[in-house]
Amino acid sequence: MLINCVAYENGSKLADIPIAEISEYLKRPGCFVWVALKDATEGELAVMQAEFDLHPLAIEDAQHGHQRPKVEEYGDTLFAVVHTVEMSPADEIDVGELNIFVGNNFVLSVRNRSGQNLLAVRERSEREPQLLMHGPAFVFYALLDAVVDRYFPIIDALETELEAVEEKIFEPGASQANIRRLYDLKSDIGIVRHAVAPLIDAVHKLFSGRVPAVCENNREYFRDVFDHLLRMNGSLDSLRDTIGTAIQVNLAMVAIEESVVNKRLAAWAGIFAVISAFAGIWGMNFKLMPELEWKYGYPMALTTIAVVCVILYRQFKKSGWL
Amino acid sequence: MLINCVAYENGSKLADIPIAEISEYLKRPGCFVWVALKDATEGELAVMQAEFDLHPLAIEDAQHGHQRPKVEEYGDTLFAVVHTVEMSPADEIDVGELNIFVGNNFVLSVRNRSGQNLLAVRERSEREPQLLMHGPAFVFYALLDAVVDRYFPIIDALETELEAVEEKIFEPGASQANIRRLYDLKSDIGIVRHAVAPLIDAVHKLFSGRVPAVCENNREYFRDVFDHLLRMNGSLDSLRDTIGTAIQVNLAMVAIEESVVNKRLAAWAGIFAVISAFAGIWGMNFKLMPELEWKYGYPMALTTIAVVCVILYRQFKKSGWL
Amino acid sequence: MLINCVAYENGSKLADIPIAEISEYLKRPGCFVWVALKDATEGELAVMQAEFDLHPLAIEDAQHGHQRPKVEEYGDTLFAVVHTVEMSPADEIDVGELNIFVGNNFVLSVRNRSGQNLLAVRERSEREPQLLMHGPAFVFYALLDAVVDRYFPIIDALETELEAVEEKIFEPGASQANIRRLYDLKSDIGIVRHAVAPLIDAVHKLFSGRVPAVCENNREYFRDVFDHLLRMNGSLDSLRDTIGTAIQVNLAMVAIEESVVNKRLAAWAGIFAVISAFAGIWGMNFKLMPELEWKYGYPMALTTIAVVCVILYRQFKKSGWL
Amino acid sequence: MLINCVAYENGSKLADIPIAEISEYLKRPGCFVWVALKDATEGELAVMQAEFDLHPLAIEDAQHGHQRPKVEEYGDTLFAVVHTVEMSPADEIDVGELNIFVGNNFVLSVRNRSGQNLLAVRERSEREPQLLMHGPAFVFYALLDAVVDRYFPIIDALETELEAVEEKIFEPGASQANIRRLYDLKSDIGIVRHAVAPLIDAVHKLFSGRVPAVCENNREYFRDVFDHLLRMNGSLDSLRDTIGTAIQVNLAMVAIEESVVNKRLAAWAGIFAVISAFAGIWGMNFKLMPELEWKYGYPMALTTIAVVCVILYRQFKKSGWL
Amino acid sequence: MLINCVAYENGSKLADIPIAEISEYLKRPGCFVWVALKDATEGELAVMQAEFDLHPLAIEDAQHGHQRPKVEEYGDTLFAVVHTVEMSPADEIDVGELNIFVGNNFVLSVRNRSGQNLLAVRERSEREPQLLMHGPAFVFYALLDAVVDRYFPIIDALETELEAVEEKIFEPGASQANIRRLYDLKSDIGIVRHAVAPLIDAVHKLFSGRVPAVCENNREYFRDVFDHLLRMNGSLDSLRDTIGTAIQVNLAMVAIEESVVNKRLAAWAGIFAVISAFAGIWGMNFKLMPELEWKYGYPMALTTIAVVCVILYRQFKKSGWL
Repeated sequence: MLINCVAYENGSKLADIPIAEISEYLKRPGCFVWVALKDATEGELAVMQAEFDLHPLAIEDAQHGHQRPKVEEYGDTLFAVVHTVEMSPADEIDVGELNIFVGNNFVLSVRNRSGQNLLAVRERSEREPQLLMHGPAFVFYALLDAVVDRYFPIIDALETELEAVEEKIFEPGASQANIRRLYDLKSDIGIVRHAVAPLIDAVHKLFSGRVPAVCENNREYFRDVFDHLLRMNGSLDSLRDTIGTAIQVNLAMVAIEESVVNKRLAAWAGIFAVISAFAGIWGMNFKLMPELEWKYGYPMALTTIAVVCVILYRQFKKSGWL
Repeated sequence: MLINCVAYENGSKLADIPIAEISEYLKRPGCFVWVALKDATEGELAVMQAEFDLHPLAIEDAQHGHQRPKVEEYGDTLFAVVHTVEMSPADEIDVGELNIFVGNNFVLSVRNRSGQNLLAVRERSEREPQLLMHGPAFVFYALLDAVVDRYFPIIDALETELEAVEEKIFEPGASQANIRRLYDLKSDIGIVRHAVAPLIDAVHKLFSGRVPAVCENNREYFRDVFDHLLRMNGSLDSLRDTIGTAIQVNLAMVAIEESVVNKRLAAWAGIFAVISAFAGIWGMNFKLMPELEWKYGYPMALTTIAVVCVILYRQFKKSGWL
Repeated sequence: MLINCVAYENGSKLADIPIAEISEYLKRPGCFVWVALKDATEGELAVMQAEFDLHPLAIEDAQHGHQRPKVEEYGDTLFAVVHTVEMSPADEIDVGELNIFVGNNFVLSVRNRSGQNLLAVRERSEREPQLLMHGPAFVFYALLDAVVDRYFPIIDALETELEAVEEKIFEPGASQANIRRLYDLKSDIGIVRHAVAPLIDAVHKLFSGRVPAVCENNREYFRDVFDHLLRMNGSLDSLRDTIGTAIQVNLAMVAIEESVVNKRLAAWAGIFAVISAFAGIWGMNFKLMPELEWKYGYPMALTTIAVVCVILYRQFKKSGWL
Repeated sequence: MLINCVAYENGSKLADIPIAEISEYLKRPGCFVWVALKDATEGELAVMQAEFDLHPLAIEDAQHGHQRPKVEEYGDTLFAVVHTVEMSPADEIDVGELNIFVGNNFVLSVRNRSGQNLLAVRERSEREPQLLMHGPAFVFYALLDAVVDRYFPIIDALETELEAVEEKIFEPGASQANIRRLYDLKSDIGIVRHAVAPLIDAVHKLFSGRVPAVCENNREYFRDVFDHLLRMNGSLDSLRDTIGTAIQVNLAMVAIEESVVNKRLAAWAGIFAVISAFAGIWGMNFKLMPELEWKYGYPMALTTIAVVCVILYRQFKKSGWL
Repeated sequence: MLINCVAYENGSKLADIPIAEISEYLKRPGCFVWVALKDATEGELAVMQAEFDLHPLAIEDAQHGHQRPKVEEYGDTLFAVVHTVEMSPADEIDVGELNIFVGNNFVLSVRNRSGQNLLAVRERSEREPQLLMHGPAFVFYALLDAVVDRYFPIIDALETELEAVEEKIFEPGASQANIRRLYDLKSDIGIVRHAVAPLIDAVHKLFSGRVPAVCENNREYFRDVFDHLLRMNGSLDSLRDTIGTAIQVNLAMVAIEESVVNKRLAAWAGIFAVISAFAGIWGMNFKLMPELEWKYGYPMALTTIAVVCVILYRQFKKSGWL
């Protein structure tokens, strides 16, 4: 689905143009065309391939989707794949894709399976002609930056969730729920990581070493995106590491809790075993058991049993078993 | 076993040729020969070595098999080893080998211990003369691509299996079955990984840095294969990592389940210990135990015992032990 | 908030100057200006941006804060972000930020969310004109060095805390407290690590390889900071590693303790089971149980039970269960 | 102990020569000398040092032994240390050392603490003069190749042992034996790894980058050895990884088995507790317990107890505790 | 404290010289001065700084101590920090420091907090004038070599201790002692590792790549030290890895032991529960319990109980629970 197709000159919008006239505008010096598609069909991509002379392998990738984030050079044209990440209403992480083709005088963005609106990027860019004058590379940066900045709230949400689990990590009885949440959290982190980690290397090539000609004059901007990605990656690494430790600690807590239960069980079992032993002995049927004949034999027996139980109880209390 | 031996010129098939005439066709400019062998015998390989002047070490590798995936240069000739991976009917992973020799005017593929048919590659190539015109390097790419693309369904199957285990990971009583499946899964992943990981470095050399002369004009195609391999490697890494966590979580679940059982055991043991204690006391043989003489002594005793048990039961229920 | 704004020439202070005159002093050869801000407002940063011609992306970073430590070149100007780390009165680790802009003839430091006073750096620098003559790069070094040196006492405190836990690691009953402290310790180490680790790479670029022109003559000083950072990083690595082992050992201790408890429980359960068994047997109501009629039947029974119990007790004692 | 000392020319054996004449043969162009020593004494090494002008540090290493595998250049001479690995009759892994000195016109091999016979290498080399013509570097390759190829059966034996353990990993009661075998296996792998891993880097330098002059024309042969080493290293990595998982799984199996035992224990304890409770109640000495007077009181009691026990038994069976 | 201060020429000792004359000797061509200090005071270091024109940052490091091992270039002068490691009488590892300054015509060694005597190095050097002729770099090597060689016995001691633990690792009841020893061992390994690991990189720079001018002619000697360090590092890695596995195995052994105890407990509990159940039933007070009236009722009861117990005992024995 075509979202818009606009020609720009010297940083300001010339006109919304029909697709058929793209090639005409491409010939005008100092002019560039910015086309945005959404969930593009095979036919739409074929048209774009013809208009912008795109490499068949790149078009194939854009069509099939499910690529890893990357930036590839096909001659003078850059082909970038970036994952869009958003929280679904059901609190699950949805991953979509933004494919960006950048040439000397055009930008083509193809957004697939993503609810993220990129119109704001276009509006902001059009409001800042001094920046838009940098040409397609700046548009490329602006798109990248917009997508990458939307990773931050996701990562914040994951950190908040981890903190919520951490608060309950030493709480008795919460182990099973904790471990479930940690497991889910780890898989969410994996998803975001797959969006972030491959992009780091890809963006690094846009400002360091042999930089693609089209990005030459915007290195500092791509370094800024790179820096954001590094920061996110650091956060994700910390999260992973903390989750690993938290699972381990949780396991220790289960063991500790169980050992507490075992001790308590042992203590009570001991106390009742003593009662049963006394009762058993005085329940024996020997003819001659003098204490059974005593007047106060029974109260004495109960008292004896009670005293022993209290002593045991105190001992166990003292040694922390009860 | 010879499968076919065909000469191509300008991207289209010249003729099926007998092995004996290979050397003749090799002399024709713009012409190349593509030979496919299956489970080649020592004799067949010796003939090929003579025809194409192959290095003895490479021939030795092709003959012995069980090589790790690699791409080696012997002078102008490339020697590649790729693992074919397929799911056997018994749901086990079978690994075969495809050895590819690529020269300036020939491609020789030797497929060993593999049921994978590569005829489709030849057919597709012959249908696209504009691509086949790129010569042996394109054939090499097409073979690589065909073998590597068949890793995807295997990896998908492993992911599906992992998801099936994950659904049961918090299910009580499933631990033993889960851990067995996770262990098998991990070893399957190891097998695929051995096909994928070494190939990444090998293919990287075909489009980056000092590229072998024969591949010079097909860099983008090899980069595409490389990209697929990276994607698979990412998936395999995720799988490994998730399995590691799943085993750990499984262990925690076993501990948690056991702690639940222990608490329940402790609670019931407590309740019955109380019954036994009371019964023991009233079973003692003291002469003077007034309550034994009471008319309603027995019902009173039963009631007392029942009341204490109910109180205990509620307490245990409340604290989550029962 | 402006802290001070001073012009220096040949290593000694010229004068405290008003912000409006900065640009004048910047024109004087051999003169440089050193401005210190604290929790700078947007407005203050905008003035500085205009005075020193700073890059908008760097200003944005300084304003938003929460950057990872880094050193970036924007043309001739360096922009550095360093974390300040201090122990709060509640024994928690507070992280602030020091943003430093270094040009050929100016240093601008912006300290955010940090209670650390850097006046001492200025005083020491002013006392050593032979060093201050090195210009802005030396000031940059002095600031870096001051911030980094304050990491040492924090790391020492963490090491002391770990040693305190280690002393209790084999102490029975301390597992839960230990594991909690280890978990907190690990997260503290994470915080310091985030200040140290990214800075290592950043500082490395200030003395090795293509060194920014402004730092050219102070390489040895930056190498000294680098060396301190490496040392800290080594300590943090050791701490992490030791904590990992300590958690593992703690888990083992819980298991060992529990196994001790279990054995003791089993031993006592065994002894009481024997008493109950004897008492049960002699409590049976068979008509003909000759020993029940014996004169010394009862004492004999008690003695038998006692002897068996003592034997069992000794056996258990000997085998270490009691 | 001198094993042999032979001069070669143009790929074929000239003569067995006495040590004293070595220096003479070294002067003949196109001629090289190949000396093999076994468990050489200090004196023998001193003679060799003089004959071939070897570096004292290399001689020292050869004498002391216990070096890590390595290839070092001393001027034009290469000094290589390779570990020989063989299975002792007691199924333990014995490690010996082969020290090889390679110059432009000599090879000196010193084999220490190793039962491996290298005569076969010499015989095979002498049978293939076209290869032996490559000179000392080819002999060096042949020795390396012979030693490295003998690692394969050792690694196979380790893999077989691991598979044997894996078959028993889910077998109840085998945990202790399994873990012992896994532990031993891991230490065996460590030994082989110490032979293989350092050699990878060392051999890499013999065919890639700045190759020592003496190896210049045999690069493909050293790459072949390198490739074998990589393959072994991959196998060893898999083994290590699998052992790690197997130990973890074994631990889980112990926990699962114990939890099965605990449940069974709990179930039987419950059943017997019920019997005791009933018997206890009907064993009380209340005067008025009507059911005790009934004619069929006793059979009724036994039936009641039996029925309750059967119900419990079925419940436990159903819930998988028994 | 000054230990000695000697001038050398052409590899042999000229004279013990007073500190004040150092500068004179430094002017003589072909002459170099070797000064050894121990636990140097600030004043002594200041004198040395003046005599040899040392960099203030290096002096500061030497004074403060607690540096990580490193080799730094300050202009033409090298500054090296090496850790001395020795076993204290209480079997603890003591770490000291050796600071070495190496110039074109001087060596200054400052030994701090170390009982290691380096006089032997001087004596050996003076006995071998042909080596001492290599100048300060050779002295530097000799000092490095002496310190590094003393790491070997420490590492051997650690390996011996690990083997001692390994022998007890499958011994029942030794878990707690084992885990304590493993924990201590791991921390000892950490200490030695901190001496070895950073030195590897540092020494690597002395023979590979851009070698400091002063070491130019002694590369092979530094490579020898490097090789020793690599070997030690390999040993330390193995130790670490083995300790990790040993702790894991120990944990498994605790679990296995406990499961053995639990089974035994369950078996005995079962046997006694059977006795109690029978005794309980025959202890009930029903009027009509025919077997109670039998003449041989009691012996029959005892026999029944005994038979059941023996059967159970055999069953448990057979299934390995007892």
